[in-house]
Amino acid sequence: MELFEAIKTRRSIRAFSNEPISQEILSELVNAGVWAPSAGNMQAWRFIIITDSNQIEKIKNLSPGIFGKPKAVIAVCSDFDEATKKSGLQGERFAIIDASMAAENILLAAHDKGLGACVIGSFHELALQRLLNLPPNIKPILLIILGFPAETPKPPKRKFEEIIWWEVYK
Amino acid sequence: MELFEAIKTRRSIRAFSNEPISQEILSELVNAGVWAPSAGNMQAWRFIIITDSNQIEKIKNLSPGIFGKPKAVIAVCSDFDEATKKSGLQGERFAIIDASMAAENILLAAHDKGLGACVIGSFHELALQRLLNLPPNIKPILLIILGFPAETPKPPKRKFEEIIWWEVYK
Repeated sequence: MELFEAIKTRRSIRAFSNEPISQEILSELVNAGVWAPSAGNMQAWRFIIITDSNQIEKIKNLSPGIFGKPKAVIAVCSDFDEATKKSGLQGERFAIIDASMAAENILLAAHDKGLGACVIGSFHELALQRLLNLPPNIKPILLIILGFPAETPKPPKRKFEEIIWWEVYK
Repeated sequence: MELFEAIKTRRSIRAFSNEPISQEILSELVNAGVWAPSAGNMQAWRFIIITDSNQIEKIKNLSPGIFGKPKAVIAVCSDFDEATKKSGLQGERFAIIDASMAAENILLAAHDKGLGACVIGSFHELALQRLLNLPPNIKPILLIILGFPAETPKPPKRKFEEIIWWEVYK
């Protein structure tokens, strides 16, 4: 798919068919993610791919924003110890920025593959850390739910003239 | 450009030719940015496009990571009041995630247009706010420096097997 087409036709998809997603495709998505920029090439991001339906059900129970039945979840996490070691006081902030840019690549790549995806930013952080067996230094930043789409949402309304300024804010 | 090609061949570019970038192209880049997902469609992002060379020089003086002479800078900002109004206690965190995902779209779109770009995460926040005439509720999240590339960096080394897990972290 052409880049601009992918950017402009991607939608947040929350309803999924029962068709599973191959490990190969899921790996490709993460591989697209790691080509996002990373502050000082620190690569503090960590990706946990969950496909087990029981495990996904448990993730649903601690994430109020998940409604449908995703066939996979990618937990985009960050090693805050490594981020702080490599980027100092700004490490955690840079880790969140890096993880989010990687997530956008994953969303676009999923759309290119015919998948639907949605970012979930709200979850019980400590419960998720325990469920995914994450050590204290590795924090989940966001979740990406994935599946073949069972809905075709209309484009949301997007502001443009109201959120752009030239040279200075007025 | 095909999406995967764009994702995999994009590099962080810090050296630029003297060729200017048209307003039309800069607008298109921001337009690619606003099609990133936004938490609850809150669209708290704000984009200030700077092309004036004196203004860019002043930005350089408060951002230690800018070395070359970018022909444009896009300051990706967020209205934290609006983010908090729309997303509650998680507003600021969601605003940073949204701004970063928009930035990734802008980087990919710039690459597609033959431009080079680099994210700058380190700057004197208050000085930048004053320079861009931002009110207290609008905070710069990151800068994107832009220009036609005067360098062709090699791909950075990217980890993959070491940063991916299936089902749980081990």
